[in-house]
Order: sequence, then structure tokens, then C-alpha cells
Amino acid sequence: MSPLAGAKHILRPRVVFSGIQPTGVPHLGNYVGALRQWVNLQHEEKPSTKLIYSIVDLHAITVPQKPEVLKQRKREVLAALLAIGLDPERCTIFYQSSVPAHSELMWILACTASVGYLSRMTQWKSKLSLDSSSTLDEGPVGSRLKLGLFSYPVLQAADILAHRATHVPVGHDQQQHLEFARECVTNFNHAYGNHLVPPSTITSPAQRIMSLTDPTSKMSKSHKAQRSRILITDTPEEIRSKIGSALTDSTPGVSYDPATRPGFSNLLEIYSVFDAEKRSPVQLAQVYANSSPKVLKEAVSDALIAGLHGIRDRYLDLSANESFLEMIEKEGARKAQESAQETMEIVKSAVGL
Amino acid sequence: MSPLAGAKHILRPRVVFSGIQPTGVPHLGNYVGALRQWVNLQHEEKPSTKLIYSIVDLHAITVPQKPEVLKQRKREVLAALLAIGLDPERCTIFYQSSVPAHSELMWILACTASVGYLSRMTQWKSKLSLDSSSTLDEGPVGSRLKLGLFSYPVLQAADILAHRATHVPVGHDQQQHLEFARECVTNFNHAYGNHLVPPSTITSPAQRIMSLTDPTSKMSKSHKAQRSRILITDTPEEIRSKIGSALTDSTPGVSYDPATRPGFSNLLEIYSVFDAEKRSPVQLAQVYANSSPKVLKEAVSDALIAGLHGIRDRYLDLSANESFLEMIEKEGARKAQESAQETMEIVKSAVGL
Repeated sequence: MSPLAGAKHILRPRVVFSGIQPTGVPHLGNYVGALRQWVNLQHEEKPSTKLIYSIVDLHAITVPQKPEVLKQRKREVLAALLAIGLDPERCTIFYQSSVPAHSELMWILACTASVGYLSRMTQWKSKLSLDSSSTLDEGPVGSRLKLGLFSYPVLQAADILAHRATHVPVGHDQQQHLEFARECVTNFNHAYGNHLVPPSTITSPAQRIMSLTDPTSKMSKSHKAQRSRILITDTPEEIRSKIGSALTDSTPGVSYDPATRPGFSNLLEIYSVFDAEKRSPVQLAQVYANSSPKVLKEAVSDALIAGLHGIRDRYLDLSANESFLEMIEKEGARKAQESAQETMEIVKSAVGL
Repeated sequence: MSPLAGAKHILRPRVVFSGIQPTGVPHLGNYVGALRQWVNLQHEEKPSTKLIYSIVDLHAITVPQKPEVLKQRKREVLAALLAIGLDPERCTIFYQSSVPAHSELMWILACTASVGYLSRMTQWKSKLSLDSSSTLDEGPVGSRLKLGLFSYPVLQAADILAHRATHVPVGHDQQQHLEFARECVTNFNHAYGNHLVPPSTITSPAQRIMSLTDPTSKMSKSHKAQRSRILITDTPEEIRSKIGSALTDSTPGVSYDPATRPGFSNLLEIYSVFDAEKRSPVQLAQVYANSSPKVLKEAVSDALIAGLHGIRDRYLDLSANESFLEMIEKEGARKAQESAQETMEIVKSAVGL
């Protein structure tokens, strides 16, 4: 690396990139695990830090989608991101498919990315419900596995690298993909010179919100039971009802022990996240040690309703304002295209295109 | 398929698409095997037929390239295409990397293309000098094989389908890839409705020009010996010298028999292609039955020099005119973007993006 090339990187401002799947209105797990941090970064980062958030619809189509539903879900996520407080003046919020550079860079990275590395990654196996020791050449794997799902980590790397992001907030399950993005940088820079920036992770205190009906597994969009999750646009009544019926256990009293008392521990985690006094789950467990489940659930509901206050109303307003969302969408696409364009000029010139 | 959707296809004009690798000035094999036909289609096809020719630089990078050399080679191919008589007013001539839709559609097609089908294709194996029975899970294959090379047929399908080409002139070695493009259409249309057009082949009388120094293998850019190939910009002296030193055999007299007399047969093939009287190789063999190799080679050289007349001068003029080439390049990109844009709107809407 020449000293100048190094200096160029150091002088560039921080760029934070993150993406969200267009699966409709986010649930509490999405919000606590990622989206809340996106909002906080607006205040925590210096004004010079670029914040780029993508609704990754090109990733969504690696598994079958109903077109009309996908269109609707994208719009819901956009409205939800604004409703939780992302400021489109401060951030770049855009649909991935509006920026061709993501696909363009994906191809260029694919030309130096090894099939062997990809075949050892786990996500395609878990999405096809395959054993982690599965290999590509097992007869039925090849016919069921689509190239899009298999090469998904390369597109994800392109998302990050197209904006030369310096920092990516990631959950535990995305570590492997960020590792792969750095591998893509190494491969590309080795072949074409020191042009792409290896991204670093921003790790947050990992708060995994669990299912309300099955507190040993993560809260998830794909769980059948609606009661298993709280959407950030749920009404106070819905929140009270879902928390009220959350599965706990029959041991008397309240205590915090995720291993043996997952239901109570999950409620205490949720409470802690939204507690105005910022008490930890353990502290809250002490306060409610002798309370009934009903009393604890009332208190959790109150904190949660207060914490999500305003999101539902803003979401409904925004959803009704089609033309405003379209304007946000266009402006986001424009800003993201501009950001990626800069990278693509460097990349194409380096590759000789 | 609804009757209306069918009608829409029937009413569309013919669209011919073909591509050429940016390997620099084409040789006689490229010219006779493909490029001459591109020129002829300008007259043979109705004026309503769209002719779209791409210099496929994104394919080129599936194998390692020197950036400066690639840039230079692209420019050489562009100048050569104009020099042989492609009319940029009649055709759309463009660099593949100037049209992001090729990469965008590639991704979308990848989401319904099966890894198993791709792994059975032969090109990645031959490019890595692997046996055709090689599989992805053989240890060294996965590390040597890059995703770009492996998924190359999907980009090639996207090239064709982005312009909803109805006809693709293909050589024998591209049949498998056109088959795959039709497979991509089937997969896409099955998932999202009848939107993409399955392309048909335009087959031409297959004229394979062989190496002058090793007439049992194809004339090729990758052959070490310069004398093995004639570039379409060679001087008359270079042509005479290369044909003069072409490998034949020591059997007395001239006859046409590719199996036992490949050298003479190749010369007769070349002669026939450029013969003003349009005689077949067999007819020419009769005319020169009792001639010496030297006499035949003189006649072949004369025909070839006459047939390529003007190409060299036009090529040199064009190559010296940087700003003209840039204008052609820009205008070609604009027309190709417009053509692909139309398809991408249909495709994105169908997919729900």
C-alpha cells in the first residue's frame, strides 16, 4: 500500500452501511436488535459520518416472493424506518434495486471470489434446511439450490463496498458475511490495487428478543403465531394482550435466568430496553422478585407502550401519504446512486472496464 | 400464455444480439466465423430488425486481465468492428460494462437459475483445463474456480434477454449457452409470468478457419505463434508471408480432404470464402489439382488481400481518431441502455422490485 493510498483512506469520513430485508413492518426483535441503533447513530456519529441504510429487495428474491406482496412490504419497511425516527435528510435510505451499481459491483467481485469459500458458508444450507456438512455435489442440492441464494454473500459484500462503508453494524449471525466482505476486498485489491476499503464492524450490546410464545427461539417474522411477536406498529391494546399471554413458567416469583426461566428473562430484557430508569434485567428481577406474573407483565407493557409511543401514528400518517413516500424513495435512490457512482468509477477504471 | 401476451411477442420486430470478447484486433477465424455475418445482417435483415452487438468486457474479466491491456483491446475491437463495415447508425455497438442492466438482470436470473445445471456445463471446466467429469466439491476445484467464471452463462443469458433478442447468431461451441439462456427464460417466466422472450439461433454455414501452423486446431488468439493467424488488419505483405509459410503436406498436387490434408483444405476454405467467383473448396481443389503449393498460396493470398481490402486503412484512420471513437462509444451506450431499460422496467415490475 502506498503511503498516499493509505492517507486517502484515513482522510475519508466514516461511512456506516446497513441493510434490512423488506419483510414488512419490523417486529420488536428487529427494532431492538438493529433499527434502534440506526436511529441512535444519527446522534452518536459526527455530522460528517455518512449513514446509508438499504432496504435490500434484491436479497429478498433469493427465495420465492409474491411480486405484489414484495412491493407492499418494501413500502411498509420504508414507512416504518421513517416512523421510528430515521431522518431522510441525515441518512440515505433507499431500495437496493434502485441502485444498479450493487449488481454491477457484485459481478466484478464475483470474478475474484472463490466458489469453494462460498460453498463452505452456512446460510444457503440453513435456508434450504440442509445439514451444515452438505456439499454442492449432492444430487438434490444442485437442483434445489439457486445461484442467487448461493452467491448472496457476494451481493451483500457489494452492498457494503459500493459505498466504501467503513463501519457496518452487525448482529452475531452476520459476522460470517462481514468476514466474507473483507475477503472480497482482499481478493479485489490483490488483483487490481488498493481501491476497496475493508469494513469494520460496529457491535452493539447484543439484545436478542425472543418469541413470546416460545421464548427459547428468536422473535421472528416467519413464526406462524402472530402472538409470538410484537410489531412496532401494534396498538397499546395489542401490546398488552400479547405481553399478557406471553409464555412464562410456574415457578413462584420473578427471577432472571435465561437458561432455566427463558419466558420471564425475555420479559425482563424487553422491560430493561424500554425502562425509563435504565435498570438492567437483573435489577428489575430484584424489584419484581415477589410480584405475580400479571403485575410484571403490566409493568413491561407500560414500558413498551411508552417506548414505542408515536411510532404507530407516524407510520399510519406516512402510509397514507403515497406521494411523500415516493419523493423520499426517489431522493434516497438519487443519493445512493451518487455515493455508489463514485466507487464504480474507481473500480471500473482499476479493472480496465 | 394469454393470447394477448403471445400477440405482443409476434408484433415485436426481430432483435438480433451477438457479442465479441475484447481480445484486440480480430483474426481471420473471428471474421469469417462471426463478424462477416454481423456485417451481412445489415443488408439481409429488414430495416425494422434491431441489430445489437456488444463488446463483452464483463465476460473478459472472468479470467485475469491486465487493466491497461483490456482498455486498449476494447478500443481495438471497437475500431475493428467499424472498419469491417458495421454501421453505427444501423446497429447498436456498445461495451457491455456501459449498460448496468446486464448485471442487474444477471442477478435476477441467478435467483431462479439452478447451481446444478451450471455445474454440469463445460466451459468453466475447459477454461480451468479440468476434465469434463470434474465436480465442484473436488478440493482444488473450489479454490481455483471463481464465481464469475462459474456463473458466466447467466450473464450471457442476461446479455441476450436484456434486449429481448429474438435471434442470436451462434457458433457450435455456443449452443450449450443458448440452451441455457432458454432455460433461464423458462425459469423466469414460470416464476413471474410470460415476460422474457426465448431466443432462437441463427446458424450460418459453419466455416471454421484453422491455424496456419497447426491446421488441425482452430485459428486462435491464444496460440503462441503469430504466424498461426492472420489479423484482419495485416498488411498484404504480412498476409502473403503467413499464407506462404502455412503448413501443408508433401503429397503431390492439391486436393480437398480436411481429414487427411488439413493444411491444403484450410487454404482452400479460406480461398473459397473470399473467391470472387464464389467457388466451393472442392471446385477450387479441382482447378488447382496439379498446381504447386506455391501457386495455390499465391492465389489464396490474392483473394484474401482483395477480400480484406480497405479494412486495414479504415482501422488505422479510426484508431487515430480518439474523439470519434469516444462519440461512437457514448452513442452506442445510450442506445443499448435505452433498449435494456425497456426490458428492465417490465422485469422489475414483474418481480415486484
